[in-house]
Amino acid sequence: MPKSSASLPDTWSRIMIPWVEPVIDGGRWPIKRIQHESVTVRTGIIVDGHDEIAAELAYRHVSSDTVHTVRLEPVGNDTYTASFTPTQLGDYTYQVRAWLDRFGTWQDQFERRVTGGSPQEEIDSELHDGAALLRRTASATSDEHVAERLRTAADAFEEGDVDRALNPDLLAVMRAHAPRDMEARSPAHELVVDPRLAREAAWYEFFPRSAGPTEAHATFDDAAKLLPRIREMGFDIVYLPPIHPIGETNRKGKDNAPTAEPGDVGSPWAIGGFLEDGSRGGHKSVHPKLGGMAAFERFVDAANAVDLEVALDVAFQCSPDHPYIEEHPEWFYQRPDGSIRYAENPPKKYEDVHPLNFECDDWQALWMELKSVFEFWIERGVTIFRVDNPHTKVMPFWTWCLRELRKETPELIVLAEAFARPNTMYSLAKLGYNNSYTYFTWRNTKHELESYARELFHTEKAEYYRPNFWPNTPDILHDELAHGGRPKHKSRFVLAATLSPVYGVYGPPYEHVDNRQHPDREEYAYNEKYEIRTWNWNDPTSLQPFMKRVNRARQHNPALRQMRNITFLETRNDQLIAYVKWTDDNAVLVVVSLDPYHEQYGELVASPEQLHIAPTHRFTVHDVLNEAAYEWDGHEHFLHLTPEQPAHIFRIESSSHP
Amino acid sequence: MPKSSASLPDTWSRIMIPWVEPVIDGGRWPIKRIQHESVTVRTGIIVDGHDEIAAELAYRHVSSDTVHTVRLEPVGNDTYTASFTPTQLGDYTYQVRAWLDRFGTWQDQFERRVTGGSPQEEIDSELHDGAALLRRTASATSDEHVAERLRTAADAFEEGDVDRALNPDLLAVMRAHAPRDMEARSPAHELVVDPRLAREAAWYEFFPRSAGPTEAHATFDDAAKLLPRIREMGFDIVYLPPIHPIGETNRKGKDNAPTAEPGDVGSPWAIGGFLEDGSRGGHKSVHPKLGGMAAFERFVDAANAVDLEVALDVAFQCSPDHPYIEEHPEWFYQRPDGSIRYAENPPKKYEDVHPLNFECDDWQALWMELKSVFEFWIERGVTIFRVDNPHTKVMPFWTWCLRELRKETPELIVLAEAFARPNTMYSLAKLGYNNSYTYFTWRNTKHELESYARELFHTEKAEYYRPNFWPNTPDILHDELAHGGRPKHKSRFVLAATLSPVYGVYGPPYEHVDNRQHPDREEYAYNEKYEIRTWNWNDPTSLQPFMKRVNRARQHNPALRQMRNITFLETRNDQLIAYVKWTDDNAVLVVVSLDPYHEQYGELVASPEQLHIAPTHRFTVHDVLNEAAYEWDGHEHFLHLTPEQPAHIFRIESSSHP
Repeated sequence: MPKSSASLPDTWSRIMIPWVEPVIDGGRWPIKRIQHESVTVRTGIIVDGHDEIAAELAYRHVSSDTVHTVRLEPVGNDTYTASFTPTQLGDYTYQVRAWLDRFGTWQDQFERRVTGGSPQEEIDSELHDGAALLRRTASATSDEHVAERLRTAADAFEEGDVDRALNPDLLAVMRAHAPRDMEARSPAHELVVDPRLAREAAWYEFFPRSAGPTEAHATFDDAAKLLPRIREMGFDIVYLPPIHPIGETNRKGKDNAPTAEPGDVGSPWAIGGFLEDGSRGGHKSVHPKLGGMAAFERFVDAANAVDLEVALDVAFQCSPDHPYIEEHPEWFYQRPDGSIRYAENPPKKYEDVHPLNFECDDWQALWMELKSVFEFWIERGVTIFRVDNPHTKVMPFWTWCLRELRKETPELIVLAEAFARPNTMYSLAKLGYNNSYTYFTWRNTKHELESYARELFHTEKAEYYRPNFWPNTPDILHDELAHGGRPKHKSRFVLAATLSPVYGVYGPPYEHVDNRQHPDREEYAYNEKYEIRTWNWNDPTSLQPFMKRVNRARQHNPALRQMRNITFLETRNDQLIAYVKWTDDNAVLVVVSLDPYHEQYGELVASPEQLHIAPTHRFTVHDVLNEAAYEWDGHEHFLHLTPEQPAHIFRIESSSHP
Repeated sequence: MPKSSASLPDTWSRIMIPWVEPVIDGGRWPIKRIQHESVTVRTGIIVDGHDEIAAELAYRHVSSDTVHTVRLEPVGNDTYTASFTPTQLGDYTYQVRAWLDRFGTWQDQFERRVTGGSPQEEIDSELHDGAALLRRTASATSDEHVAERLRTAADAFEEGDVDRALNPDLLAVMRAHAPRDMEARSPAHELVVDPRLAREAAWYEFFPRSAGPTEAHATFDDAAKLLPRIREMGFDIVYLPPIHPIGETNRKGKDNAPTAEPGDVGSPWAIGGFLEDGSRGGHKSVHPKLGGMAAFERFVDAANAVDLEVALDVAFQCSPDHPYIEEHPEWFYQRPDGSIRYAENPPKKYEDVHPLNFECDDWQALWMELKSVFEFWIERGVTIFRVDNPHTKVMPFWTWCLRELRKETPELIVLAEAFARPNTMYSLAKLGYNNSYTYFTWRNTKHELESYARELFHTEKAEYYRPNFWPNTPDILHDELAHGGRPKHKSRFVLAATLSPVYGVYGPPYEHVDNRQHPDREEYAYNEKYEIRTWNWNDPTSLQPFMKRVNRARQHNPALRQMRNITFLETRNDQLIAYVKWTDDNAVLVVVSLDPYHEQYGELVASPEQLHIAPTHRFTVHDVLNEAAYEWDGHEHFLHLTPEQPAHIFRIESSSHP
């Protein structure tokens, strides 16, 4: 052979798998699903000539050697598709495998020879070729019963048995047992399977220290009394700001005052302070006035008893009183004079907290310790965390930490509180966060809402980014809410809860439509971050019943709890937004007025197809929010919303959605 | 350290490069450019916190160790971009590299401290930090002059020299010399650089045996006489059907008759026959009646003398008289009785050719031999090949063969004649073909043309698929051309030549508007594949002058020779298609009537921006096809095309395009 034959490939397959979908950035990051949510894979499979291809999608949970397979079906243009439904939490891989279906190809061509009237000598010759394929498989299989059947068939072929050669059952046997000729495999791509609450959940945030009847610092036992009503409102998760001891040195006063007055409680995000016995406690301690660890554990038990999960805040920063400051000064940024740097955004300083130096010489010990903070609370029954400003901590720390935690705790839910540039927010989701804050708060017009929803739900981002919609937080009271009062609180709540299957609300001021804004900033006045508030949990005018009805609609309509199937509809009015969400057996139409001041009229333009009903003259829409039903027909439907009733949540009733 | 610290990463960077564009299928296949065509790369670069990033695009030709770099500039949303222009043929790699700009970060924050009025002790402390950065770079650099300058600056910092600390020149020095902190690198992605004719070329196909004045078999010396007129018409490449000896056994007669009559010349694609001396010749021989190898070499010289390139046909199949049949029967498919299989698509047989078995036991020798066919003709000055039905030969053969050929012959152009499923056609381009036949022939309505052009020119496909538009071939005479006669021949020619920068025409019947169609198929009657035709090269009614004007427009307007910049415009008439193509200093508007039977009127709706001119009251469009000029103003322009004059090619004249 000529010397340049050294360049010849050692192995090759006639089959090429040029692309697989979904994969993120060419397969660098996993896609995400929740348990029992299906994955549909599409792939190109190319072969020269007219050969038949057999292909399967192979998937397995990384904890197991058992590979499951499902046949990939052709859908035209060399494209194949298959679906599977992961049942376990944790990491899966999925891979496309394709090989030549030699017997299928042979049988297809043989049939064309027979029906095309090829001469007998050609038929006989082809039957011998077919028999050879059967005998090859008979020799290769370990199933003696199959081998015997194939040898018998081969004998019949050689005796000219055309009917036997065309037998579809024989094809099925050959497809199941023939050696895989020229098998090609795609790379094994990754899938992370999260618990249901990672996609479908309503979060309720409150400050446990404000749970009492007076401005006295409440305990977890006080806070536990609120749990049944939160559950009754239909929430799934209670999320607590940091519960740790709060620093006294440089403590902030009310309204973020640089100096605290006596009695000021400080910001829970200034983590690290003194315990009852005078020792210091940090990220693994509970604020003594909340009742300490025992009270927290009772709180978790009480939550779980009413089917609520507890989410904790993880803010990796330390007050000057945090034990790390003395024990591990090397974990912080030091000035040339040896003092420890405050958090700052020059020239501003945040003297109640010190940032950690993830790049310090002792980074290994620091990273291990920080991971152990999660582990500490996981051991105490918490598997849901809201992480404060993750984009200001180094990315490879999260990649490592979240992957390691998931090995032991695949039910982990981590919500990234990053209001950063979109690419940074998407990158945090790629590297392991499975819930993310969003720009929903700042998307208020119809155009803004529709285009943002399309970006999140109709693009590749839906494969890895789970947007958690919040109309408010302790840091944000948007002008729209502040000025729009009760009608806007209603409409934004419906939008958050029905656009996205996972959403949250900073509950107490929202329920009470406390829209008193800080004079200088889009924040709450009397901000609970710095002071204790009292709330009338039995206020008959609160939004509690409204919020309960919205959450009930979510619970009863699976369409509202999925992410991808959303279509916006024409309303002939820019103040009225309308969208349909659907599953196989449920369709919901949501209409929301964006105007908190005036009545709004419009016409919904929607075909039966868009409403996911069979073409029909009349059908019923049931407004589960306002307890009313309407008979509709045709393609245009009158809409009327008011500041008092700014939204409809219509369940669409039809023969196809009984 | 706890034992689970074993999971900690060995190395990490705070910088994450989540994606780079363009890459094909996550970087599995190279992108393509021609020499001196720029590559613009976009990439995401993410870092925690507020650090400044420095980033560069590094690229190099694989034959060289010299790495060139160009600074990546931020364009918002953590996205950076840079461009470079490859100057050499062959393979390049390009890679994103990003690192922390520690001094830039320091200087930015220091400036904010100074202007924000930070206390003197803080300023002094920061100056010491800044000095430390300078001294670190001074120690690291091998440029003693720079080191000295940095040490002097550090001394000044330590003496409180704020102005020096804010000096932008110092920042530039530090950016050039500071050690690269936390450098992250993307994978090295591949770029193939092809010769200009791979993107910008007009192909002319003809049968050299029909080049003579009578029906006698013409020679290459006869054919060479046509070269000056082909060049004069503005073509760049003459493409010849196979030039090899044609099989006599089972030779096809006129009109694809199963049996040849005496004197029938046979199909050139039935490769392999007898030479003058009675020996057999195959893919490395020239048909004796064409004049043998010497005449071919004279033909190539004559072509090059008038600045034409010669493209040969590579059809890997063998007539029964091909020397491989006797010498290497193991390279073919054999029946159980030992006979060699014909090409077939059951129940049809093609008894004048045998397919090669790329999977045979002796595949290594076969693949080497087939590669040597290309090498044989490359040695004789041919570097452009049209490959017949590449999708019926195994894909890994092409991957290997084309890669190997390019190592020695980076000027290679290979046109894939695959009218297969689109995914197969795109896959052949991914694996190495740098020109491809298309579905242009079957895209005739305005909607079809616009949507196909958008698929090819406005999507990722433009990175690797170079569509070669042909209105006709010896295999295809579309009904539109057959019925539309001369007007349709004109309009389809303009479309092919102006939609795509690379196009071709099967010349003789096109010039002569020979639209006589086969009664049963969308093919030519009197098909030259099976018989010799004579053509009147001096026919004054031929389309030769028209074709020349179109090619002249291409030569004088670079906008018509690029691929991506095309915008379709409204004409208010579905029979009138209009599009603009532009480069930095050239803009061309093409308007074509799709109706060969009637006059058509319309209004072009186009803003100055869409026409790539400065906002202006009046401007001039110069119809380089019909030698007329019009003064236009406003946003709507009257259009009128006729069967006699079915197209405009307007060069847009304006102050911005002098």
